[in-house]
Amino acid sequence: MNISKRGLEIQESPIRKLKPFADKAQERGIHVFFINIGQPDIPTPQPVWEALKNYDEDVLSYGPAQGFLELRQAIADYFVAYSIPLTPENVIITIGGSEAIHFSFCVVADPGGEIIIPEPFYTNYNGYASFANVKIVPLTLSVEDGFRLPPAEEIEAKITPKTRAILLCSPNNPTGTVYTPEELERVISVVEKHDLFLIADEVYKEFVYDGASHKSILEYDEIKDRAIVVDSISKRFSCCGARIGAVITWNKDIFQSILKFAQARLCPPSIEQSIALAAYRMERDYFVPIREEYQKRRDVLYEGLKDIPGIVMHKPQGAFYIIVRLPIKDCEHFVRWMLTDFNLGNETVMVTPAQGFYSSSGKGKDEVRIAYVLKEQDLKRAIHVFKEGLNKYLSLFSK
Amino acid sequence: MNISKRGLEIQESPIRKLKPFADKAQERGIHVFFINIGQPDIPTPQPVWEALKNYDEDVLSYGPAQGFLELRQAIADYFVAYSIPLTPENVIITIGGSEAIHFSFCVVADPGGEIIIPEPFYTNYNGYASFANVKIVPLTLSVEDGFRLPPAEEIEAKITPKTRAILLCSPNNPTGTVYTPEELERVISVVEKHDLFLIADEVYKEFVYDGASHKSILEYDEIKDRAIVVDSISKRFSCCGARIGAVITWNKDIFQSILKFAQARLCPPSIEQSIALAAYRMERDYFVPIREEYQKRRDVLYEGLKDIPGIVMHKPQGAFYIIVRLPIKDCEHFVRWMLTDFNLGNETVMVTPAQGFYSSSGKGKDEVRIAYVLKEQDLKRAIHVFKEGLNKYLSLFSK
Repeated sequence: MNISKRGLEIQESPIRKLKPFADKAQERGIHVFFINIGQPDIPTPQPVWEALKNYDEDVLSYGPAQGFLELRQAIADYFVAYSIPLTPENVIITIGGSEAIHFSFCVVADPGGEIIIPEPFYTNYNGYASFANVKIVPLTLSVEDGFRLPPAEEIEAKITPKTRAILLCSPNNPTGTVYTPEELERVISVVEKHDLFLIADEVYKEFVYDGASHKSILEYDEIKDRAIVVDSISKRFSCCGARIGAVITWNKDIFQSILKFAQARLCPPSIEQSIALAAYRMERDYFVPIREEYQKRRDVLYEGLKDIPGIVMHKPQGAFYIIVRLPIKDCEHFVRWMLTDFNLGNETVMVTPAQGFYSSSGKGKDEVRIAYVLKEQDLKRAIHVFKEGLNKYLSLFSK
Repeated sequence: MNISKRGLEIQESPIRKLKPFADKAQERGIHVFFINIGQPDIPTPQPVWEALKNYDEDVLSYGPAQGFLELRQAIADYFVAYSIPLTPENVIITIGGSEAIHFSFCVVADPGGEIIIPEPFYTNYNGYASFANVKIVPLTLSVEDGFRLPPAEEIEAKITPKTRAILLCSPNNPTGTVYTPEELERVISVVEKHDLFLIADEVYKEFVYDGASHKSILEYDEIKDRAIVVDSISKRFSCCGARIGAVITWNKDIFQSILKFAQARLCPPSIEQSIALAAYRMERDYFVPIREEYQKRRDVLYEGLKDIPGIVMHKPQGAFYIIVRLPIKDCEHFVRWMLTDFNLGNETVMVTPAQGFYSSSGKGKDEVRIAYVLKEQDLKRAIHVFKEGLNKYLSLFSK
């Protein structure tokens, strides 16, 4: 009696697996700067907490499978403000962006189906691929050119008869890259030519810097039937623990099918939907200072790292991550060493080895992902400690 | 470009698909007694609401994938009070019992694997079977003998080389049957003999009547490595909208594998976990009056129905459902007619056609499921209206 193959093979979260070393460092009294995960320190907005205090029901009962209509309307309205004329009929509330990914994978592909995803990519796509028994076909991008998408022919070379969809994440976790309209249109022409779906993870939509803005795949009429958008309030409203996301589509067949998947799990959490509603009803200028804060942090991080000899990176245009190549053969060893063997005045830093963001074997071993989720002062200190640790490591271990 | 086969084939919730007819009846000003779904009217306990008001965080952040330790400890303690010596290392918090079912299916079976489930069964098992691409093999039980389990040979006749597990739900939704220790032991000997897992949905554990008590599969040492229990606070604490459940296992491999599935969806909702903790910390006598209330309702329903000519049913021992066979060929037609064409003094009743609880084609067409989730007075009135409707229907449509 063995557990299933998928149960054995599903990847352990590469982000979480080094956490025990950080825990032990903390037990030894060392302060760890956590710039490894995308947990924002931005306070959850006050209207969310007020909605929580004002929640008033006698029975905490089931809601509709597709989510409460008011919330679906509020999300539609949020997109309308971006000139994307959604209605609640295009929006299904999900349990986090995670479930939106899972539903999207299941609705486009049967077991054995393939989904092309530029790598490095958000590692939890792997978990859902195992869950849904679909195969992720990586399209390898490179830190040298800032993870830009390759020419159409290179994307097309990944297509097989089993390919069902291409997934883009923009602004990108883990690279911080925001695809240009030209890049989106390149992919759109590929999905049209080869009759594929296009899934877009747009959860970092609000986090685009330098006055630029995010372009959604929902803005392209030519793929109205092919577009599936994965959305979430986690980062947008600093509500990671709420587990409220959405899957958005113009395609009525996709909507109906996802609705049936949604019925199987009954409904998203009721209380957390009501606080999400409060978040969406805030004024849009809520995002302005937050965007400015992250842009400042990005600049602090980028400027702080750029004089490291041998470092390769590009300035991120969005989200709050950067992938950097270090003059190190095995960054997982380095990250662990920083937690087990190094401290500077009782401080150390935890970043994430980038290997787990690649599905091509051996890729990303000399890269790390850094999340700029700390306040400026802490981030500056973290960068200083990181650089000192890196120097020490390089002096101990030759490349 | 078509959506996936699983996306097309996943069953629409048979419980929810007649809801639009009820909505229309209400729009016509008719009062509908809803005894079709298991949404208890019992108020969510006060400590839960107090925990909600007292929730105090700055950032609604991610929790651990396996759920908060305090809640896992509280659930373990709840079972310890039943002399089942669990620790937090046996408990993973899930997003509702639904996710616990999904995880269980995925950890025991790969796509194409088979799980034997006595039918009629909780219809959402179908949704998760589609999701996980496992095949449910029904073991057909009968209303005539109160849905008791058949001899071991009949269960064994369903086993193929692809069989991975047997799933039991006790107290049962939709039949109200509580399996006896002898029935459990019969199934346990089958899973041992054929090297299978045993999944038990025990969410109605507290709802057992006439002074009897529920026996968990966790109490059998001989299947410590084979037992997986699906649990939920939805009915136990009248918290259906919280979406907090648990999967419980002694088997460390299963625990580790489910933990990896859990990491893919990051974490269960944080606020709802904290209110679940408050529920589990209540005194155990919380359940006494609730159990009495449901037992009274069961008796009211059973006594109210038993003089219907041609009816076949057995008195449920647990949960809050009953399956009754009516002298009607097509109960879906009857249920719809009750909503579209019938009313008694502007009142009508919605029950659920039982066909959707069977996966064997054609089974259950002459049965309905009734949930006794209304207060005594309302339930009595609902029974009266139901019987009048039934008489009228029988006079219009011969069998």
